[in-house]
Amino acid sequence: MNDLPWYVGYFSGRHWLKNVDYSIDDVVRVIEASRDLKNKFYLGVETPYLKGRTLYLIFYNKSLRTRNSFQTGVFQLGGQGIYISPDQVYAPTLPEDMVPYQTEAISDVARVLSRYGDGIAVRIYGDAAKWIIGRGHRVIEEFAKWSKVPVLNMEDDLYHPFQSLADAQAALEALGWPKKLLKGRKFVVSYAYSGGLKPLAVPQDVALMASMLGADVYIAHPPGFELLDEVLAKVKEFTDSWGSEFKVVNNMDEAFEGADFVYPKAWSPKGFFPPFSRDSKVHKEEAMDYQSKFRDWITTIEKLYEAGRPYYMHCGPADRGQEVSDEVLDRYDKSLYFNEAENRLHVQKAVMSMVMARVVR
Amino acid sequence: MNDLPWYVGYFSGRHWLKNVDYSIDDVVRVIEASRDLKNKFYLGVETPYLKGRTLYLIFYNKSLRTRNSFQTGVFQLGGQGIYISPDQVYAPTLPEDMVPYQTEAISDVARVLSRYGDGIAVRIYGDAAKWIIGRGHRVIEEFAKWSKVPVLNMEDDLYHPFQSLADAQAALEALGWPKKLLKGRKFVVSYAYSGGLKPLAVPQDVALMASMLGADVYIAHPPGFELLDEVLAKVKEFTDSWGSEFKVVNNMDEAFEGADFVYPKAWSPKGFFPPFSRDSKVHKEEAMDYQSKFRDWITTIEKLYEAGRPYYMHCGPADRGQEVSDEVLDRYDKSLYFNEAENRLHVQKAVMSMVMARVVR
Amino acid sequence: MNDLPWYVGYFSGRHWLKNVDYSIDDVVRVIEASRDLKNKFYLGVETPYLKGRTLYLIFYNKSLRTRNSFQTGVFQLGGQGIYISPDQVYAPTLPEDMVPYQTEAISDVARVLSRYGDGIAVRIYGDAAKWIIGRGHRVIEEFAKWSKVPVLNMEDDLYHPFQSLADAQAALEALGWPKKLLKGRKFVVSYAYSGGLKPLAVPQDVALMASMLGADVYIAHPPGFELLDEVLAKVKEFTDSWGSEFKVVNNMDEAFEGADFVYPKAWSPKGFFPPFSRDSKVHKEEAMDYQSKFRDWITTIEKLYEAGRPYYMHCGPADRGQEVSDEVLDRYDKSLYFNEAENRLHVQKAVMSMVMARVVR
Repeated sequence: MNDLPWYVGYFSGRHWLKNVDYSIDDVVRVIEASRDLKNKFYLGVETPYLKGRTLYLIFYNKSLRTRNSFQTGVFQLGGQGIYISPDQVYAPTLPEDMVPYQTEAISDVARVLSRYGDGIAVRIYGDAAKWIIGRGHRVIEEFAKWSKVPVLNMEDDLYHPFQSLADAQAALEALGWPKKLLKGRKFVVSYAYSGGLKPLAVPQDVALMASMLGADVYIAHPPGFELLDEVLAKVKEFTDSWGSEFKVVNNMDEAFEGADFVYPKAWSPKGFFPPFSRDSKVHKEEAMDYQSKFRDWITTIEKLYEAGRPYYMHCGPADRGQEVSDEVLDRYDKSLYFNEAENRLHVQKAVMSMVMARVVR
Repeated sequence: MNDLPWYVGYFSGRHWLKNVDYSIDDVVRVIEASRDLKNKFYLGVETPYLKGRTLYLIFYNKSLRTRNSFQTGVFQLGGQGIYISPDQVYAPTLPEDMVPYQTEAISDVARVLSRYGDGIAVRIYGDAAKWIIGRGHRVIEEFAKWSKVPVLNMEDDLYHPFQSLADAQAALEALGWPKKLLKGRKFVVSYAYSGGLKPLAVPQDVALMASMLGADVYIAHPPGFELLDEVLAKVKEFTDSWGSEFKVVNNMDEAFEGADFVYPKAWSPKGFFPPFSRDSKVHKEEAMDYQSKFRDWITTIEKLYEAGRPYYMHCGPADRGQEVSDEVLDRYDKSLYFNEAENRLHVQKAVMSMVMARVVR
Repeated sequence: MNDLPWYVGYFSGRHWLKNVDYSIDDVVRVIEASRDLKNKFYLGVETPYLKGRTLYLIFYNKSLRTRNSFQTGVFQLGGQGIYISPDQVYAPTLPEDMVPYQTEAISDVARVLSRYGDGIAVRIYGDAAKWIIGRGHRVIEEFAKWSKVPVLNMEDDLYHPFQSLADAQAALEALGWPKKLLKGRKFVVSYAYSGGLKPLAVPQDVALMASMLGADVYIAHPPGFELLDEVLAKVKEFTDSWGSEFKVVNNMDEAFEGADFVYPKAWSPKGFFPPFSRDSKVHKEEAMDYQSKFRDWITTIEKLYEAGRPYYMHCGPADRGQEVSDEVLDRYDKSLYFNEAENRLHVQKAVMSMVMARVVR
């Protein structure tokens, strides 16, 4: 295979745990590679850049988009994805959580799989991470510590890097590619109500991504839904470096006003979970009670029109009737909902090509 | 790839929810394509007609034949099948059955998967369809409504189109291919006892198929096991158009007498399930009690010999000792049991090649 | 594809239930083929010897190494592996264990899958084999009886042939390949404590393999952990034929003294399980109580140094803190732990190429 595109093996052997491990230029490179792969996908051009390669997909949580975009994408690159649920193995576990003959050390699992295949992708948050915020991310870091092949973060309790890459591409495409930055655009990450308990990964990662690409970033949420301090500091650092605005507000409508993009999405109030809860315990019921006060944080067509018709964004699955009304998803013509999902396929193919290919140049 | 066979992309982009959506000629075309693929399979000829393509296999119910014939078949065509069980995703659900943050709208699932892959195959009946007869089929219609890629029915509570196509091929092969019709042959679809609750899909679909191909169709069952009126009307329409016989009788032996093919198989009495039950409720225990009166509806070697040694057919898995005796499955030389299972592979490869390939002609 | 290596199709169509069904020369041939495939793997040479072929992987038990090495390996050979857990099908079952409409006869499952694909691999022991020692192996024999395609034993309650082949390769590589025998080497298979109940498969198979390759074989365990008589007889037969030593002792340290290889690993005391228990019943709790007396059968760095620094071996997953200390696994420089796991990939690719390929020579 001659004439490989520039991005194949560009980051050969590196992990992808969070986008901020990479530079702004690198992030743009991923989206450029993703655009090339998307074009080839539409044109029916073959892209066998990972021929014969195997990616292990370890899902501690449910998944539709992530699993299927990875497993479809790696096959379109000539490889295969193996779906692994933790009940099919001795669950890969941090040293402090080991249960003899029921779990297996992540260090062992990572080293064994490194001998067989070419990448390990992991999703973990919620129950599997004991609802301790940051524990899921530590699991993924532990895989990365021991694996000799690239480890990919398919969403943990802090980050969801492939989601925000796909979102960035969808936003830039909406503005008209080859626009590659969001400078001068107002990008709102807002809380939206759901009865369920969702991780911080998406809002944190999307806020980071918007700030990396130069947007004016607004974060809106009720009291108690603050993102982690270190993430906010990082967003501020990026917006400062671009000379962009950064504001946190407690009102959805105020944030939406005049926005170019709104990303209203549920997450959980962190004060009910360790290490942020007053007693270091998990309080799921109280968290659900508390968030039930904010049922009016729902996105409707009316709100979008009042705000001036911004692009609507959501990682999916959106809780219909809670986070958003049916008509926004089904009929709002500036919804990027399905484009975001679609771009998961392409950004992941880009990163897989970049990190999993072994090429001689 | 030049010189593609005629059937590749022949029905490009169309769904396959039930055979009666297609003409009699079309059904024969599927079997002709299936024969070609079966020959190539035996000869070891490569058939990469779906290279790089992905089929999603959503199974709300258990499966051996269907899953493995699809997943093996699509790979033999150069593609891959991804097995999805509903507990691995937020279960794809009809609008009226949605549970926030536990289910996801079928409309969303279908639209997302359409952006990644090339086909969506679904099996759903029984528990997953709430035992409401027709609900499973509605789920598959909902997928078809929203999907931009072909949707394939892997068995619902009304139809099992790939089973009856495989059965038709097995019957025609038994008579000596290239015979392509069953005109002048007596084909019996009969109830057979099982302790389990099985859907109407197979008997309905097989009766339709036999009538499409011109057979004299006999349906035998105890009172209470009537097939749906609209299906019976359709069978009558086909047999009338061929000038063939069509009879419903309540006696297995009478039906078997002089038959060319017998297809004795369990299904559930519909009067115990909505929308046919008197109170619109599900009565599984009563249904099982009721059907337990018909334990003598078992197929034995003796019955087959008395009937004049017809071909024995069953979709599998057959309940040994209930629907049929061991010796029929293991030693009766006119059993088509394993040939029917085998042809699942080939008819499905035929239909996948016809609907999932995107070709320029 | 010209110039196929000698081993492709070498045992075309044969089952692989246990290594002792093959000759010593055959076993060495597998390792030679495995070495060739391992070299090609490292060099990035394509090995499409099973292009388009499908292997069914039926797992009644959990698995990390076995599943992933098979599913990765068959893909590296151009084929695919389909992972099947018994809850996704009507569980394939021996005649005496059938439950109507919940299970399916192994005879039927094997015959159906034989019509679609190219191999059936099965793992079964413990719960799925009702804790009756030998029942798991009978299940695999039943598959082999009915299947027309090769059946591969992925571990039952008596044998784990691919593990001992991988172990043999790792041991020979440690000594310096192309050394192909263990003659003159002391090889110790020892009990090690675990709280869990593990099958006899690994110690039995490893002892057989070591004796086949000519080693002086020592088996060490507390009273009650005797291997099966027929296995011990077979080991004795092999060691006698080589003029090698064979001893069973009840002391770990005594066995370790001066060893070249030690393989300390948990298994269950057979007297608590049928057909060996006094009352033909299963006594899991008593077995666990009994084995808990032997917590000092743990392998530590100190013991290994006292013994003269033998190579440490274990099939994985090792129960850290029970069978072995962390530092042996993570820091002992003569541990073959990860090499053994790695070689699973290569020996299995070797055997799959040998039995599943259909070639004309």
